[in-house]
Amino acid sequence: MIDLDAVLQGNRLAFSRMLTQIENDTEEGEQALIELYPHTGKAILIGVTGAPGTGKSSLVNQIAFHYRNPEDGSTPKTVGIIAVDPSSPFSGGAILGDRIRMKSLSGDPGVYIRSMASRGSLGGLANMTIGMVHAFDAAGFDVILVETVGAGQAEVDIARLAHTTLVVEAPGLGDDIQAIKAGIMEIADILVVNKADRPGAEHTERALKNMLQLAHPQLRRKFINNHNDNLENNSDEINLWETPVMKTVATTGEGLPELMHQLRKHRDYLNESGELRYKLRNQISFELKHKLKNEMLNRFNKKIDGQFYKEIFDQVLSRKLSPQKAVKVFLEKEGGE
Amino acid sequence: MIDLDAVLQGNRLAFSRMLTQIENDTEEGEQALIELYPHTGKAILIGVTGAPGTGKSSLVNQIAFHYRNPEDGSTPKTVGIIAVDPSSPFSGGAILGDRIRMKSLSGDPGVYIRSMASRGSLGGLANMTIGMVHAFDAAGFDVILVETVGAGQAEVDIARLAHTTLVVEAPGLGDDIQAIKAGIMEIADILVVNKADRPGAEHTERALKNMLQLAHPQLRRKFINNHNDNLENNSDEINLWETPVMKTVATTGEGLPELMHQLRKHRDYLNESGELRYKLRNQISFELKHKLKNEMLNRFNKKIDGQFYKEIFDQVLSRKLSPQKAVKVFLEKEGGE
Repeated sequence: MIDLDAVLQGNRLAFSRMLTQIENDTEEGEQALIELYPHTGKAILIGVTGAPGTGKSSLVNQIAFHYRNPEDGSTPKTVGIIAVDPSSPFSGGAILGDRIRMKSLSGDPGVYIRSMASRGSLGGLANMTIGMVHAFDAAGFDVILVETVGAGQAEVDIARLAHTTLVVEAPGLGDDIQAIKAGIMEIADILVVNKADRPGAEHTERALKNMLQLAHPQLRRKFINNHNDNLENNSDEINLWETPVMKTVATTGEGLPELMHQLRKHRDYLNESGELRYKLRNQISFELKHKLKNEMLNRFNKKIDGQFYKEIFDQVLSRKLSPQKAVKVFLEKEGGE
Repeated sequence: MIDLDAVLQGNRLAFSRMLTQIENDTEEGEQALIELYPHTGKAILIGVTGAPGTGKSSLVNQIAFHYRNPEDGSTPKTVGIIAVDPSSPFSGGAILGDRIRMKSLSGDPGVYIRSMASRGSLGGLANMTIGMVHAFDAAGFDVILVETVGAGQAEVDIARLAHTTLVVEAPGLGDDIQAIKAGIMEIADILVVNKADRPGAEHTERALKNMLQLAHPQLRRKFINNHNDNLENNSDEINLWETPVMKTVATTGEGLPELMHQLRKHRDYLNESGELRYKLRNQISFELKHKLKNEMLNRFNKKIDGQFYKEIFDQVLSRKLSPQKAVKVFLEKEGGE
């Protein structure tokens, strides 16, 4: 049994047990998420994505450290870190790698780090991450950092859930990586060139700025359109966010105060422009759609006659029936019962 | 209107028009796929995945060239290439990059190359790729090469659709890329170290072989289990595939004859072991599940009262109702009508 009162009161052992239930997608985990839901919606949600080798784990550690030790004299914030690691689609086990977390964070009860395995199922990763985020949120963490390996569709979906998305690059990772950058860059609210003490940092910075100039007009129009559709108070003067390119050296902490300043600035922008509200609506829409599909498939699986399913399946396998027609046959059968 | 007879007779203009309809997910494209389905199931489907910078586009070109000009004196095969490019989740437009295709392929009517944009929707990429593969298959291409940028969940899903999956690596792409490799490696039927004339090729080859040794026992057990569940003729003697590590230089063609030999060998293994049949069942299962979910969501959207949806949505937004409960409320309402 998960002790939800203990979770809400900050008991880390109860919290850890609950996360395991959620990750394993058990009934208990699901039930906990339902009961905790009224306690969610308070945390600041930051996504950090980037290719392997960009040093994004170190950067996440530094950001956590700076939230714990704010330079501007504000109250320290508690920080949850969800690290989504690439894993085997077959064994289901995560290869967590040697994640060396900073000494300065270890033993700090205001920081909690959880490495998560991605599962093989399509869409499972984004959905499980939503569950994890709700859990950290309900448990009272002020800031939640979600760290993902960039480039894939699942990562883009996860980035969409965040209020602020950081895309981390590093000099010298190869120039033909640009095609991939261009895709992931459009989800960036803040671009970070980490390892900025290495040769080629200026080149990377310039390349990113050039790409931003190309991408921006399109993005701008897009957001204005969304704005008009979704916000009640629709003024002509729309507050726009210009994605900054920041330089950091996560191993030494260089550039971190400036990055923290941009994080606060983006938070203010989200609140003032109404974009935060827009993002929250999008996230809930995504979650509802996903859960609806899965629940409908569950109910279908319970209702459908196994022998009948097998017969139709074999007709598709032998190319006598198209998958589209098979779906119609299934749903007519189900509807008729 | 799509002229399906022309498509089946090899008319490339009609084929190209149809692909556009499928990519844009139009009614016409969907209808074409339904009608073409009985003509599918004949092509050899090869997935080629790898990070940017591994030279996998050049490798795909070389493989196509060798299928067109077989060394073993067999009949040349027609080749379709589907290149899945990373794209913006917002604009929907693909950044196709400067894909320099070999001179030796251009003008050859037996090769058809299509670059595909990934769309923003979750699971959309894998589904659209299935549609494209069916189209190439029905149009009579003997071999279909699906090229994806490795590492993400969507790429893993696409790799699963292929009969044979090649994972391409290159020397000197950074050692901390290993975590990601470990995940993607388990989907590899053949590992290729491309750019094998560069320094560090032996090191990369050794690292891959070491990883394979670690991963193999697990994979082996897994496949034996699947085998027992899925095949009718269940003999004790199970034919196992040992993933080879091949070295190539795609720009010069070095190592290509050996790679083609492994491709043929894997095809024989798939047929003899019964794994091909197992893979086809899996793919159809995946496709049916995906299409069922989407069709159920479509029907839900048509049936549900907009005002009612909005009321429930707002309760979720204000955290009064959990998404799980909202889904139950929606489905009860729908079921009661």
